[in-house]
Amino acid sequence: MNESRWVLSEDRFFDPDPQQRDIARHLYRRVKSLPIISPHGHVDPRMFADPDYSFGSPAELFIIPDHYVFRMLYSQGIPLERLGIPRLDGGEVERDPRKIWQVFAEHFYLFRGTPTGIWLKQELYEVFGIDIPLTGETAQVIYDRISERLASPEYRPRRLFERFNIEVLATTDMATSTLEHHQAIRASGWKGRVIPTFRPDDVIHIRARGWRERIRTLGERTGMDIGNYSRFIRALEERRAFFREMGATATDHATLTAHTERLSAQEADAIFQRALRGEATEEDAHRFAGHMIMESARMSIEDGLVMQWHVGAFRNHNQLIYERFGPDKGADIPIAVEFTRSLHPLLNAHGNDPRLTLILFTLDESTYARELAPLAGHYPALKLGPPWWFHDSLNGMRRYFDRVMETAGLYNTVGFNDDTRAFPSIPARHDVWRRASANWLAGLIVRDVISLAEGEEMAEQMAYTLAKKAYRLG
Amino acid sequence: MNESRWVLSEDRFFDPDPQQRDIARHLYRRVKSLPIISPHGHVDPRMFADPDYSFGSPAELFIIPDHYVFRMLYSQGIPLERLGIPRLDGGEVERDPRKIWQVFAEHFYLFRGTPTGIWLKQELYEVFGIDIPLTGETAQVIYDRISERLASPEYRPRRLFERFNIEVLATTDMATSTLEHHQAIRASGWKGRVIPTFRPDDVIHIRARGWRERIRTLGERTGMDIGNYSRFIRALEERRAFFREMGATATDHATLTAHTERLSAQEADAIFQRALRGEATEEDAHRFAGHMIMESARMSIEDGLVMQWHVGAFRNHNQLIYERFGPDKGADIPIAVEFTRSLHPLLNAHGNDPRLTLILFTLDESTYARELAPLAGHYPALKLGPPWWFHDSLNGMRRYFDRVMETAGLYNTVGFNDDTRAFPSIPARHDVWRRASANWLAGLIVRDVISLAEGEEMAEQMAYTLAKKAYRLG
Amino acid sequence: MNESRWVLSEDRFFDPDPQQRDIARHLYRRVKSLPIISPHGHVDPRMFADPDYSFGSPAELFIIPDHYVFRMLYSQGIPLERLGIPRLDGGEVERDPRKIWQVFAEHFYLFRGTPTGIWLKQELYEVFGIDIPLTGETAQVIYDRISERLASPEYRPRRLFERFNIEVLATTDMATSTLEHHQAIRASGWKGRVIPTFRPDDVIHIRARGWRERIRTLGERTGMDIGNYSRFIRALEERRAFFREMGATATDHATLTAHTERLSAQEADAIFQRALRGEATEEDAHRFAGHMIMESARMSIEDGLVMQWHVGAFRNHNQLIYERFGPDKGADIPIAVEFTRSLHPLLNAHGNDPRLTLILFTLDESTYARELAPLAGHYPALKLGPPWWFHDSLNGMRRYFDRVMETAGLYNTVGFNDDTRAFPSIPARHDVWRRASANWLAGLIVRDVISLAEGEEMAEQMAYTLAKKAYRLG
Repeated sequence: MNESRWVLSEDRFFDPDPQQRDIARHLYRRVKSLPIISPHGHVDPRMFADPDYSFGSPAELFIIPDHYVFRMLYSQGIPLERLGIPRLDGGEVERDPRKIWQVFAEHFYLFRGTPTGIWLKQELYEVFGIDIPLTGETAQVIYDRISERLASPEYRPRRLFERFNIEVLATTDMATSTLEHHQAIRASGWKGRVIPTFRPDDVIHIRARGWRERIRTLGERTGMDIGNYSRFIRALEERRAFFREMGATATDHATLTAHTERLSAQEADAIFQRALRGEATEEDAHRFAGHMIMESARMSIEDGLVMQWHVGAFRNHNQLIYERFGPDKGADIPIAVEFTRSLHPLLNAHGNDPRLTLILFTLDESTYARELAPLAGHYPALKLGPPWWFHDSLNGMRRYFDRVMETAGLYNTVGFNDDTRAFPSIPARHDVWRRASANWLAGLIVRDVISLAEGEEMAEQMAYTLAKKAYRLG
Repeated sequence: MNESRWVLSEDRFFDPDPQQRDIARHLYRRVKSLPIISPHGHVDPRMFADPDYSFGSPAELFIIPDHYVFRMLYSQGIPLERLGIPRLDGGEVERDPRKIWQVFAEHFYLFRGTPTGIWLKQELYEVFGIDIPLTGETAQVIYDRISERLASPEYRPRRLFERFNIEVLATTDMATSTLEHHQAIRASGWKGRVIPTFRPDDVIHIRARGWRERIRTLGERTGMDIGNYSRFIRALEERRAFFREMGATATDHATLTAHTERLSAQEADAIFQRALRGEATEEDAHRFAGHMIMESARMSIEDGLVMQWHVGAFRNHNQLIYERFGPDKGADIPIAVEFTRSLHPLLNAHGNDPRLTLILFTLDESTYARELAPLAGHYPALKLGPPWWFHDSLNGMRRYFDRVMETAGLYNTVGFNDDTRAFPSIPARHDVWRRASANWLAGLIVRDVISLAEGEEMAEQMAYTLAKKAYRLG
Repeated sequence: MNESRWVLSEDRFFDPDPQQRDIARHLYRRVKSLPIISPHGHVDPRMFADPDYSFGSPAELFIIPDHYVFRMLYSQGIPLERLGIPRLDGGEVERDPRKIWQVFAEHFYLFRGTPTGIWLKQELYEVFGIDIPLTGETAQVIYDRISERLASPEYRPRRLFERFNIEVLATTDMATSTLEHHQAIRASGWKGRVIPTFRPDDVIHIRARGWRERIRTLGERTGMDIGNYSRFIRALEERRAFFREMGATATDHATLTAHTERLSAQEADAIFQRALRGEATEEDAHRFAGHMIMESARMSIEDGLVMQWHVGAFRNHNQLIYERFGPDKGADIPIAVEFTRSLHPLLNAHGNDPRLTLILFTLDESTYARELAPLAGHYPALKLGPPWWFHDSLNGMRRYFDRVMETAGLYNTVGFNDDTRAFPSIPARHDVWRRASANWLAGLIVRDVISLAEGEEMAEQMAYTLAKKAYRLG
């Protein structure tokens, strides 16, 4: 790597051993141009609904919406206001995108050796053609170049979608969403496959702020008065049917713990009634969430939607940031999670049912080899999602391969998903995975654990096939 | 590795760096032909009692008894019935071993990169001379070749025992066992050293199914009416004496948690009486198990039996499988374990006593560097067992070396044990350990952490000496 | 490495890959001669107060004060008495340093592959010029050579301090310390910068043995009658001011768990009163410790002392050893620690305050990637300390780099500290860190994650700048 010019090495992220590197390169080249399957992420579907959608300024594209980026700057004492993050109270924040960009560029060194640094660099280089390092000195030149490109028609999201060779992109959508943007995409005749994912957390977490209003909205969407638990279940089933009509193949669920339990209909309704009255306790919310995981699995068995479950993020850890700027501001912190006992009720009820595909995600890597791989290597319904969030990184992937694959087996995993809000970072993220996979497989080949032909087949599975199959996107 | 012919590379599992590989090969060659010490495992002693014992069909040898194998197939939706696993209710299962073998061969790709895949391949290649890959196409040819060999006298267990160069093989036997097969081996005059291990779990876990009948059997074996706790203790002591006479040098214990506590004789008896009446609570069972660990350590100090303790397997997680097929069907799942506080009573009572050797096994690798290595690097009585079960793998061993050795020191570990039911897999398992050890030591040598001469001595310790000494097999 | 002569390879601890090794060597050479910043450790300041201080015999220097050393010997059955560790009851222990040294030398093989082995070897070689291996045969020859050198004026601590190129050395001192040795150092006119660190654990842990006497001493030091909580706080503030005058830039705190909570002044006083009466409960002590962490952060914000916090050591696990020999005898054992929820009160009160620098240390590596790196990558006040204690090792550092840096970023860490009582081991410990850092960075460079120039800058940060800045030693 040269300081005055950025060059992305052809062999980046591969082990230096020449023999392993040669094999890694060989495997990578076979999969690098495969279409992208993006079965889970947070891209805003609006950008595909409007054919003329523009990303705005470089600051609006790269910094303001990306909590991976501004959390690091914040950790080094830069107030979020200086980065243009909008305050809930409408208070003063920096509005000049050039100034925001300048601060970011001056601190870009903070991202050395981080996945965010890797993605940003590759995105700048490959998507925007920036081939000089981003520093305080080069900030404004680079700003100009990016702005210029963003203004051109080639940088409309639909054009990038095609250029990125995305076969399917799943968004994540609230149970109460009208899916208007998905409808608009369909109506437009554009051929890009952008599908919704049903995420009912907002109506399931009964003590979350605004829950009662959302239940009212859920009622409006379904034309029901959701005054009791059984109507709530019916409403969810209707919404799932609507999402399926709109192309969804999966649901997504997030909880703090992996607790599961089946409540009787009476217990469930009693809790639901307390929630409607604003009287639900923490314990109620905990038990209801555990019960709704069971119910969601039951619904998935019936309607065929693949179930994703993300466990263990303590949301909005920093109350000051939450109150001033709202959620998703880089202050969600993982906790340790127990799976073996917690999933016992769920897996005993539905884990042997081959109609169910339950994809689990964790932020607690100590559970990879101890709990999740042994569970996934036994229960037919259970599959393991790729390294999530903080672990979506070179080291995170290496640890995942190291700890999961021997016990779960590759075929009980589901390939990669980018899980991103930052649409232009999608190719970089999949590229890191494909390189890391190729390098891992090359390591097995060079140690004679698998053959070259086996590695070739596995590389394709990891880049493309496993995700497509697990998410029923065939 | 070539697809049309299987060849096991001389250098398999070694790092690709030429310098490290050369040293690893050098160390490995020094230890690869050392006799096998197998101080802990689950081979059925019957196979050595009967000089004409035959393993049956390839399916009966490789698939039906091996939960490592069929759990992976089950996880991919293949019913255990199709694999010939007997149902407790006598229900229909596949009986044609060729069909079972065909299903297995068609799914053998699932074991890519897994330890089971490594063992099976090496076993097929080295024990049975199979040099073509196992696939759906080759399944029946390979079946025929294995069957042919299994029919020959060279494949009688005693002949294999000698061919495998096993110096000693310890089985695992219930406290109530008559050790009839061990007696028959002795009586036969055959020189193979097959010794029992005293495992009293069945009579210690007071809420386990069938406990009272086993207490009755224990009474029969010892000619006592075991109506109270003190007789129970006396009966155990008698059985231990009998096992020692029969060659045992060790006991084995398994509990869910690492809890230890000393009950007073009155408390212990009160719990025992409740258990006899079928009224023992979960709490009773938990405390009694913790107490019996203390008692077992006390007995070991007195009679010199080495104490093994396996902690943290949640048994029979899948109730449907347990009820239909029984225990040991691939549905035991690890849990997180706390050692530091839990072992406090035990180690304060007996940890400073050099007469005691307590060998600990865990499935929770997060405790390696945090709890177990610091404890073993201090208490004279404590030694660490090798990576257990899911962690008996190339990566598992590497993690174990990485996290244990710096703090515990090599000489507070006890070498390897294969822990297997699958007798013909024993050489492959020890070979993986010897290769992994050689490679680890080569990594230290090439980084100048140890000298070549030190590595040579350590390789021999790991392959042979440490296990022999720790288990008092000298 | 040659057996008859010890040679420390120029390239020790670097990866064997020639390309990575070349870069590692390059980076290491740039930083190996930088001054040593030692911002946290346990060296006795007395040795710098007395210009003629001598270390005594080799046994008194290397064995008797170093629990890293004698814990390993003890774990292999060697009584501490044979190693000359003084008994509290004045009972007989070995007094002949030559005999103690002989036992140590005969068992030096136990340290193969351990950090203690690495430090000792480098210390013997580089500080004492010993170039033959330490064994039972060479023990007495080496003893003589070391003794000879220890007798020479070049081996006075001040001379070594200068030879080691130490820019600053922080000791750790009780809140009640008069800092007499620090005063003597100042008064002597010697230019070495040896500064105290304020460690109030002894007066904060209200159920610890001797707490009331220490409170009395604290009263004497401050001229107050510490009869209530508010005077206790005032006394601590006064002592902090005194330590700051004496050059301290930091405090140090140790607790078993990471619990934090703010008590009301009334609650705090009620607990304090119970403690004075000897009636404080475990729960009281736990809550009071959590509260005092909050208070200490508050004080740090006011007086600018950097706050260090070491969490998770279960002290004096072995009661027999504790009663016979006292604390710090190699029987402190880590426990699992929860940070995300435990630090919530503290970080919400003070985590956003840029005036606070809180440096966290853990013995539970499972929290690196799961909790600590995500927290440090968000909260401005939080930084992560280097691998602590058992993890201050080649593998421990590699795991730390692997799990912390991607999420926290290098610039939210604080370089290295040696944390040692063994003054002559300081250069070896920093050298291991500098080599491990160089090798880690070389691994990133050779994989094109960072550029060479970035690696050069980061190597200097890790060796020198980060520690100096974080501890406000500029």
